Amino acid sequence: MVAPQKFTEFIEANADRFIDRLGEAIAIPSISGDASRRGDVVKMAHWLEAQLNKYGVKTEKVPLGTQQLEGKTLDLPPAILGRIGDDPKKKTILIYGHFDVQPANKSDGWDTEPFTMHYDKASGKIMGRGSTDDKGPILGWLNVLDAHSTLGLDLPVNLRFCFEGMEESGSEGLDDLIASEAAKKDGWFAGVDAVCISDNYWLNTRTPCLTYGLRGIAYYQIIISGPGSDLHSGIYGGAVYEPMTALIALMGKLVTQDGHILIPGVYDGIATADANELKKYEELDYSIDDLEGAAGGKIANSSERITVLMGRMRNPSLSLHGIEGAFSGVGCKTVIPAHVAGKFSLRLVPPQTPDDITKKVIAYVESEFAKLNTRLNMKVEYMHGGKPWVADIEHWNFEAAKKATEAVYLQTPNYTREGGSIPVTLPFADNLGVNVLLLPMGRADDGAHSTNEKLDVSNFINGSKLLGTYLYEVAEITQTA
Amino acid sequence: MVAPQKFTEFIEANADRFIDRLGEAIAIPSISGDASRRGDVVKMAHWLEAQLNKYGVKTEKVPLGTQQLEGKTLDLPPAILGRIGDDPKKKTILIYGHFDVQPANKSDGWDTEPFTMHYDKASGKIMGRGSTDDKGPILGWLNVLDAHSTLGLDLPVNLRFCFEGMEESGSEGLDDLIASEAAKKDGWFAGVDAVCISDNYWLNTRTPCLTYGLRGIAYYQIIISGPGSDLHSGIYGGAVYEPMTALIALMGKLVTQDGHILIPGVYDGIATADANELKKYEELDYSIDDLEGAAGGKIANSSERITVLMGRMRNPSLSLHGIEGAFSGVGCKTVIPAHVAGKFSLRLVPPQTPDDITKKVIAYVESEFAKLNTRLNMKVEYMHGGKPWVADIEHWNFEAAKKATEAVYLQTPNYTREGGSIPVTLPFADNLGVNVLLLPMGRADDGAHSTNEKLDVSNFINGSKLLGTYLYEVAEITQTA
Repeated sequence: MVAPQKFTEFIEANADRFIDRLGEAIAIPSISGDASRRGDVVKMAHWLEAQLNKYGVKTEKVPLGTQQLEGKTLDLPPAILGRIGDDPKKKTILIYGHFDVQPANKSDGWDTEPFTMHYDKASGKIMGRGSTDDKGPILGWLNVLDAHSTLGLDLPVNLRFCFEGMEESGSEGLDDLIASEAAKKDGWFAGVDAVCISDNYWLNTRTPCLTYGLRGIAYYQIIISGPGSDLHSGIYGGAVYEPMTALIALMGKLVTQDGHILIPGVYDGIATADANELKKYEELDYSIDDLEGAAGGKIANSSERITVLMGRMRNPSLSLHGIEGAFSGVGCKTVIPAHVAGKFSLRLVPPQTPDDITKKVIAYVESEFAKLNTRLNMKVEYMHGGKPWVADIEHWNFEAAKKATEAVYLQTPNYTREGGSIPVTLPFADNLGVNVLLLPMGRADDGAHSTNEKLDVSNFINGSKLLGTYLYEVAEITQTA
Repeated sequence: MVAPQKFTEFIEANADRFIDRLGEAIAIPSISGDASRRGDVVKMAHWLEAQLNKYGVKTEKVPLGTQQLEGKTLDLPPAILGRIGDDPKKKTILIYGHFDVQPANKSDGWDTEPFTMHYDKASGKIMGRGSTDDKGPILGWLNVLDAHSTLGLDLPVNLRFCFEGMEESGSEGLDDLIASEAAKKDGWFAGVDAVCISDNYWLNTRTPCLTYGLRGIAYYQIIISGPGSDLHSGIYGGAVYEPMTALIALMGKLVTQDGHILIPGVYDGIATADANELKKYEELDYSIDDLEGAAGGKIANSSERITVLMGRMRNPSLSLHGIEGAFSGVGCKTVIPAHVAGKFSLRLVPPQTPDDITKKVIAYVESEFAKLNTRLNMKVEYMHGGKPWVADIEHWNFEAAKKATEAVYLQTPNYTREGGSIPVTLPFADNLGVNVLLLPMGRADDGAHSTNEKLDVSNFINGSKLLGTYLYEVAEITQTA
């Protein structure tokens, strides 16, 4: 362990105070998606800025413009940018986190008030909205700053901070801020050598992990129309072409039961996993039972553990989400829906891009529709998307995180790729052109967007040690390198 | 014309009074589906009974028990049974109609108050809820009774009446009443020789019609489950079997784009149309343009007029209605739905029955699901159904209606089969074992369940003549027979 012992001892010794501070943060209901709570998001920004300032971090509240929400024009909550350390001999690490949270009401099914921290010592669980997503990780960084400030220790690296208050509402305004700061010669991100984001979760409840990839997404709808309005199936059934019959046929031509995507060219350029990569999956501490336990059913699409894991993490997938415009209620309705839109999306992996995949999807669906030979109208619409991302795990940024994990947890971390997206990752990677590391604090069962969101106290305290230790490992590796 | 000239002259001469009486009936908002209007349905029953009594019809209000509606236990509105004439030398005709109506509010998009009759002399349209469905036809019978009573004319047949106040709410209680009366030796329906129901519509806006068939229905849902709850497509897509993928595959195996049903054995026993039957379709005054105009799109599934007409009237069909449990909203949701139910139904023609078709549907869907080779769970559920019905159009009941139509309208009627159902038809046909004739008064564009429901005054007045003339033709034909 290259981190000073007094740092880790300080974290241990001040655990109760740190938990209380997390309680303070949880008590501010900074829900970005609720217009009536916008003042609380701003209050949370001020609270966080004051904490950073206390430990010598220079900050700026950056206005991000306005948004339309619930029919009102609202100021977006400011981003908090911060810097501490300007030593040209040290590496500079940019830290990202978000101080807004998902909505929560006790009546949703919480056991305790969501905005009053409930720390259950027996189970070691810190319950409350934002405990794990993402106030716990942000406060982990405050704990690291607190330790160094209080102990009079120099930080081993220069730090830059980018904290936002709109992550749970599409990170509105942040992409532009990142792009413009990255473009400035002396912007807040000048000289950043690597990025560390702590806003995802372990793959399970027992093994720390480093996340090096995210799948992208491309979301589509197939719209089919024909009749002027919904028709009665008794009166028209058998005499007309029916939009649902055509839509179901097209949706049935997209993917096989075991997940093979049928769109020609969709797999072009995707590398087969080599022995090295396969080994990463072999080493993962995650079983088919884990996956099926989390999914709530015995539904893994292979009995080969590695196939299932790669299906989830590194291969593209296609899911059918539903149909807009058809009968969707309980019971029976004898309708021929006039205008239906089938929704589906692909999860993308490099080198797939939404642009390229969209061309292939449209060409394929149009050609399959033509074969149906109906007199209906069809249109495929690309609705939204995002590119996939994979980081180089041989980079010192990952190496430092691995060593820090081994030092704090005495475990080799899982190397994971997430099937979903963490939208802020790509703007940092693309605009700054540096390595981005996802270093989660919480566990797979924290329930980030659910009722009874929690953070295990051991994850909070060890996680704080991990973040600090990671900085020392960065300094150590890059000095010897 | 075998009907006395003074009968038809009386109908003409009293048109204004008859229209006013229809206005009285429309003004009673007898909505059977609205608990707060139950008193109005009962009021309508009393109004109708008093009218019948005025012309010498003996009546009984038959209680039909109670129902649960909007959390309350309500008395069902009584059925009105009636009889006039007991001459053993005359035929006895049973008349059915219903005095309840669909809900209506001006705010639904009506041009005028739905429960205030609006008679537009320029266009000849009588607007108002119930004008065509089914108060107009019921009042047509009152007009016939009025004429005979006022003129002192003997009715050419014995009449029995069965009027109900729950047709728009599933005819609750009526099936039992029909069955029990039919079983009684001296019940209200004793001695009935044929039934006449005036509760459907012409195929177009210009040609009267006789309806001799109704398709049956069998409604199903295919339920697929597997995950314990809805899953995130980013996290699980590619690693698990997805219920939607399996459901879409199964729904895609039920019917072709041009309407051919793929369930083995489903066409067993259905007779091919012979030259005689084909001629009936050739003679129908209904074009593909008519159908496409009504459907609001150029979507007929054949360029052969007879094929389209037979698809609508005499062949079975299968429609896909929608999916319960999947994403059905506007926009995007990256969900893997955990529990989905695909709804579809078949329209049946003789000799198909819901029982037999259900066996074939279940066997087929189960075998196709097995082929998918997933680890999901599947269940096919039969939800409701009804048998098809076809009457013998060579029967004197139809012959009389044809002659009456020719006499009143100077046109040969269309002989139609309806694609949908008129549920009360089958209980009469099955329990009484006599010929049932559907003799519509209104036109295809009357908008029975829509806003701005109307009845053309010419249909009301000529329709009243038609009903009376039909009774004379019955007497004429059966005497010579």
